[in-house]
Amino acid sequence: MTEKLPISLEDVQDAARILDGQIERTPMRLSRTLSAITGATVWIKFENQQFTAAFKERGALNKLARLTDEEKSAGVIAASAGNHAQGVAYHGRRLGIPVTIAMPVTTPFNKVEHTRAFGARVLLEGTTFDEAKAYAQTIREEEGLTWIHPFDDPLIMAGQGTAAIEMFEDGPELDVLVVPIGGGGLISGMATVSKALSPKTKVIGVQAAMYPSMFAAIKGQDSKSGGASIAEGISVKEPGQLTRKVVEELVDEIVLVEEEHLERAITLFADVEKTIAEGAGAAGLAALLAHPEKFAGKTVGLILCGGNIDTRLLASVLTRALVREKRLANIRIIGDDRPGLLALVSKIIGDNGANIMEVAHNRIALDVPAKGAEFDILMETRDAQHTQDIIDALASAGYPPRQN
Amino acid sequence: MTEKLPISLEDVQDAARILDGQIERTPMRLSRTLSAITGATVWIKFENQQFTAAFKERGALNKLARLTDEEKSAGVIAASAGNHAQGVAYHGRRLGIPVTIAMPVTTPFNKVEHTRAFGARVLLEGTTFDEAKAYAQTIREEEGLTWIHPFDDPLIMAGQGTAAIEMFEDGPELDVLVVPIGGGGLISGMATVSKALSPKTKVIGVQAAMYPSMFAAIKGQDSKSGGASIAEGISVKEPGQLTRKVVEELVDEIVLVEEEHLERAITLFADVEKTIAEGAGAAGLAALLAHPEKFAGKTVGLILCGGNIDTRLLASVLTRALVREKRLANIRIIGDDRPGLLALVSKIIGDNGANIMEVAHNRIALDVPAKGAEFDILMETRDAQHTQDIIDALASAGYPPRQN
Repeated sequence: MTEKLPISLEDVQDAARILDGQIERTPMRLSRTLSAITGATVWIKFENQQFTAAFKERGALNKLARLTDEEKSAGVIAASAGNHAQGVAYHGRRLGIPVTIAMPVTTPFNKVEHTRAFGARVLLEGTTFDEAKAYAQTIREEEGLTWIHPFDDPLIMAGQGTAAIEMFEDGPELDVLVVPIGGGGLISGMATVSKALSPKTKVIGVQAAMYPSMFAAIKGQDSKSGGASIAEGISVKEPGQLTRKVVEELVDEIVLVEEEHLERAITLFADVEKTIAEGAGAAGLAALLAHPEKFAGKTVGLILCGGNIDTRLLASVLTRALVREKRLANIRIIGDDRPGLLALVSKIIGDNGANIMEVAHNRIALDVPAKGAEFDILMETRDAQHTQDIIDALASAGYPPRQN
Repeated sequence: MTEKLPISLEDVQDAARILDGQIERTPMRLSRTLSAITGATVWIKFENQQFTAAFKERGALNKLARLTDEEKSAGVIAASAGNHAQGVAYHGRRLGIPVTIAMPVTTPFNKVEHTRAFGARVLLEGTTFDEAKAYAQTIREEEGLTWIHPFDDPLIMAGQGTAAIEMFEDGPELDVLVVPIGGGGLISGMATVSKALSPKTKVIGVQAAMYPSMFAAIKGQDSKSGGASIAEGISVKEPGQLTRKVVEELVDEIVLVEEEHLERAITLFADVEKTIAEGAGAAGLAALLAHPEKFAGKTVGLILCGGNIDTRLLASVLTRALVREKRLANIRIIGDDRPGLLALVSKIIGDNGANIMEVAHNRIALDVPAKGAEFDILMETRDAQHTQDIIDALASAGYPPRQN
């Protein structure tokens, strides 16, 4: 006989009643183009349209609303520099609950400011997240605050699960529900709903291959998590204890996605859906790109669970996609160092309608003759064929480039 | 007595009946954050959620649906490398009408492919848009096709106007409706609706300052249009004759926006609304940023009319925003060329938690002493304060940087 799980459908339904009208009912839409690309019928819940652009508000509000009057007036504390901080701060202010958020001193100013703008007290302490969290625990004890865990709390898990209730109400019958996993709060809630309302729907979790912590925990393996994944929101080294129980019992499978799939998914959301996904928010689509055979022909529900991606990172992901499509190409020309070589090469590239973005002129590389010259040219072209045309034109002129 | 205008509210209502269920009913939402930033109450119609990510489908479908059976079987032709091409090709295929689209040979492959993917015959001819258009006219005559004008056609204008019917149905009473102007198709339709349904609503048009063609035409001035505006979709040198009549009669004011405002608007849509706007699509928000005094305290309806921005351009706009926020900073260090200077400077920057992205080492600049050295360092910081902290640390170490 199975152990009683930490949450039930009723807990999520209770949360849905509390959240009703207090958060956005985010839309769920069929994406015809992403369906064509992936071979599945792809429905997307645009949870990046929450006010703080992430699902974390759901759990935060469900938790905050259930505090006793005493707990409410004493206030709450959380450690987070991300979406959890925003969710707690935003709904704390709405409910008149004093909110304290601890973040490392290295947190970017705009994240600190966003959280302060919601009226939260932000404590900057420690250089790592763990140090900030340890400090937050000290303050919690000193000041008698209530700890708002980002995932390992039945009220948080139940709150996140409300997203699945909306998906089953708004969408078609799903063959598969795909849910990103960090600590496991979102998938515990959503799997609880899915297995109760639609037992035939498979629930598949997704983790970044750099942080396969829940994947490993379920298999009883040691997880080797670390590094800077683009899916920061699910870069969690230690899954929850409560969430793990639910995942073990209700989740059919966990798949891993590489950084490249996450990048492609972010790019597709931007190109096709004109919407901005953070790495964790794109993990569901990344799973379809990484493991198409698992989803082909099926009706799949994805949750685009967050849109808070650093601008610099987004610009970099979009630019790297162009490099993959060969619309940005680096070519190396080795010439004879006579005057006018760069002018000649530039003219050929310009006549062919491409833009030169950078030229590095290297006269001291050892792999060219002493009197030779080497240019690295970064050029922007219309497409891969255009790049090839220019390479051919340069080769015809006697300067066959190397592409790197 | 006023001359009869080319379209009436009834024409737009007829179009709305034809379009009903055939195009997306795009959402209109209040943006609390953009309201706080601009000082107006900002409602946005997310017309970038049309299947082809732009409003152009509305006019195209209204026109195509009204063709005679003979015209339908003969087919249609348009000259466009942009949203009009997509709209005509997509709905042409839906209605079984053969579509030919002429584009210049220099059109990026992905635009050609997108249009071909809708089953259109794409003719690549001429190196400029005008050449492609002239060629298209020849083909039209030779093959007896129907010309689908991008704006100067009462059915196109009426089709575009349906967006305003939806905005008045879905939103609150608007004090101002802000509409981008290229050829004038969208604003003619929308102003017709607005003046009929809500006479007290002011209709304000927006043009890119680089293409003030309608603005000048209405004032009877010569327009000096040209150059590569980021708002390609409204970079139109010659406004329509029919659209001009409507604008003259019904539009209260036309404002111009600089490229910088368009860039800021694109960035805000990405940062705040997690949505992707092309330059023309961001023109309405740009108008609020450029002329805040005109909109302060008012309830304003914007149409985010298109989301098709080249990825490279979007990445560049987002990156330039970081430079403005000083999260990307170029500093120049002039030192004494002793060994280890770069190591010292790099260590200070690294110890302060910033990333060095590029170093250019210039030993031959004439503004440094012969034995001196000059570095240009591009670094990524958390925010403007972080940049300043690093500059201060370098100055304390004896190497005060110049910022450029």
